[in-house]
Amino acid sequence: MDIALDMMGGDYAPLEAVKGISLFFAEGVKNITLTLIGDEAAVKPLLLTHAIPLDNITVVHASQVIKMQEHPTKALREKQQSSIAIGFHLLASGKTDAFISAGNTGAMMVGALFSIKAIDGVARPTIGAYIPRENGTLGLLVDAGINADCKPENLAQFAILGSLYAEHILGYQHPKVGLINIGEEEGKGNLLAQAAYTLLKESKHINFIGNIEGRDILLDKSDVMVCDGFTGNVVLKMAESIYDLAQRRGIQDEHFDRFNFEMYGGVPVLGVAKPVIIGHGISKDFAFKNMILIAQRMLEKELMQKMKDVFVQKV
Amino acid sequence: MDIALDMMGGDYAPLEAVKGISLFFAEGVKNITLTLIGDEAAVKPLLLTHAIPLDNITVVHASQVIKMQEHPTKALREKQQSSIAIGFHLLASGKTDAFISAGNTGAMMVGALFSIKAIDGVARPTIGAYIPRENGTLGLLVDAGINADCKPENLAQFAILGSLYAEHILGYQHPKVGLINIGEEEGKGNLLAQAAYTLLKESKHINFIGNIEGRDILLDKSDVMVCDGFTGNVVLKMAESIYDLAQRRGIQDEHFDRFNFEMYGGVPVLGVAKPVIIGHGISKDFAFKNMILIAQRMLEKELMQKMKDVFVQKV
Repeated sequence: MDIALDMMGGDYAPLEAVKGISLFFAEGVKNITLTLIGDEAAVKPLLLTHAIPLDNITVVHASQVIKMQEHPTKALREKQQSSIAIGFHLLASGKTDAFISAGNTGAMMVGALFSIKAIDGVARPTIGAYIPRENGTLGLLVDAGINADCKPENLAQFAILGSLYAEHILGYQHPKVGLINIGEEEGKGNLLAQAAYTLLKESKHINFIGNIEGRDILLDKSDVMVCDGFTGNVVLKMAESIYDLAQRRGIQDEHFDRFNFEMYGGVPVLGVAKPVIIGHGISKDFAFKNMILIAQRMLEKELMQKMKDVFVQKV
Repeated sequence: MDIALDMMGGDYAPLEAVKGISLFFAEGVKNITLTLIGDEAAVKPLLLTHAIPLDNITVVHASQVIKMQEHPTKALREKQQSSIAIGFHLLASGKTDAFISAGNTGAMMVGALFSIKAIDGVARPTIGAYIPRENGTLGLLVDAGINADCKPENLAQFAILGSLYAEHILGYQHPKVGLINIGEEEGKGNLLAQAAYTLLKESKHINFIGNIEGRDILLDKSDVMVCDGFTGNVVLKMAESIYDLAQRRGIQDEHFDRFNFEMYGGVPVLGVAKPVIIGHGISKDFAFKNMILIAQRMLEKELMQKMKDVFVQKV
C-alpha cells in the first residue's frame, strides 16, 4: 500500500510534514510506502536531516504550489504541476492508494470530487470533523461545511458514511447516530430535519438514536452527529473557538485543551471512491502523523469497499 | 406604567418571583406598578413574608396554571383562568403595559402572536437570546429558535428588530449587525444566507458589518448576530453547554461563569406590538428582577413605538 503526501500544503510545509513522517516511522515497522510530492530541492535535504529511511519513500517533484488563497478550480486547472494536481493524478491512475494534503481545502475538494469522483450511489460526498468529548473519545460531525444546502436524502447518506467511518476508523461498535435538531421529539425542527428524521429512522444501515440538541454536541450522546454543512460549519468553528477562549482566560484543563483542533490532523472526505484526507492549514508534525495513520487505517480496513458495498444496494 | 408578572411560571414559582420583585424594589423608587397574576393564597402570604410594599402592587387571582409540558395552543384555549391566559388578556385590553412569564414558552409565544399580534409590517416576530462576550458585554442572537425555517426577508427583519433592541435596551450606539455564515466574504453560505446578505447590505435601518463565522459568535465581532432559528437554537444551546462543561471540569472563571444563562432572565419577543418577555424555566430571583427591569426599560424607551416607526415605512 502506498500513501501520497503533499509536502507543500499547510502553513509549515514542508518542515512539519517531514517531522510528521519521522514520527510516523518512529512508531514501528510499517507495511506501507510513502510518495512525497513537492519541491525536491526542499524536501530531500529535510529527509536526510531528519534521518528518515528512504527505502520506503519515493519523492515526486512538483514544480508548482497552489497557495491557500487561490481559486480552487482555476488553480487546479492552470497548475498541472502543483503538488495537489500531481497527487490527484497519482491517486486517480492507481499509482498511490490515498492522498493527504494540508493545502488549499477548496482545491482538495475539487480534486476529490472531479478526479476521484463519488462512490456510485452517493449523491453528495461529505467532509467530517472530530468533536472532542469529555470521556476522552471523539465524536464525528458530518457535514462539517462542504454542503451548505442539503436535501434530506443527503443527510441520510452522510449518516451512513459517517457511521462506517466511526465504526472502522474510530473503532465504535454500532456507532450511535444523532440528528442535530432543535428539540428532542420526532416532528421537531426545520423542514429539512423533520424529513431527514424519517429517513434516518427507516435506514437499515445505521443505529439511529434520534434527535440531539445543541447542548448534546459537546457531550457523548451520539458518536456520529448529522446535519447540513451550514449548521455543521457554524458548530465546528464555534467548538474551535472554545479552545481560543480557554487559552485567553489562562485555563489549564486537559479537556479544554482537546478543543485544540491542531491535534487531530485531517478530516476525511467521505463518499469519494478513494481515501482523501484534508488537513488544517495550521497542521504540525503530530497532525501530519495522524493523517498518515488515518489513511493507513482507511486502507487496511478497506473502508472504501465497505462504503461501496452499502451504496451498491441503492440505499 | 404597569408590568404584569406571571407568578406561577417557572420551576421555582412563586417564591423566586416574589424574591425577584423584592430585589427590584430594593434598587430604589420606581415609577411603576406591578400586576401579579397567580394563586392569591400562595402569592399574598409570600409578599408579606418578604415585606414587599403593597401600594404599587395589584394581585390578580388565577385559579389555573399551564404546566411546562402542556400543549401550548390547547392549554391556552382550555385554561382561560390560567395566569398566562389572564396575563395576555390584561395586556391585550390595555390593563397592563407589559407581560413577563417564566412559564410554558410555547404558550407564551402563542399568546404573544395571537393575543398581541405582530407589529404591522413584521412578517415573523422573533425571539432574541443573549450571548456573553469576553469584554463583559452581551451580544444579541436573533432568531434563537422560534422560526426554524426562514426566508431572507425574515432575517432582514430580525436584524432591524434586534438592532433596535440592542440600541435602546442594551445601550449600543449603531449596533454592529453580523450575519452568521460559513465564510467571511460576500457570496458565501447557503442560499438563505447568500440572499439575506444582499438584503442586509441594502438595509438603511442597520449597521451591517457583513458575515461572521462560528468562531466569532463568542467574541465581540458584532453586537447583533442574525440567523435562522434552527442555527440560532443550536448555537444558543451549545453556548449554554459551555457553562455546564466548565462546571464539570471544576473551572473557576468569571467569563465562563457568564455562560450561566440563569443570570440573564428572560429573552424578549421582538416584533409583537407590546412588550412580552419569556423567562427560562429555571429562572431565579435575579432573573425575575432582570426581566422586570428589561420590561421597564422597553416601556421607558418606547421601544415598540420605535419599531412601529421603522416598519410603517414598509421596509
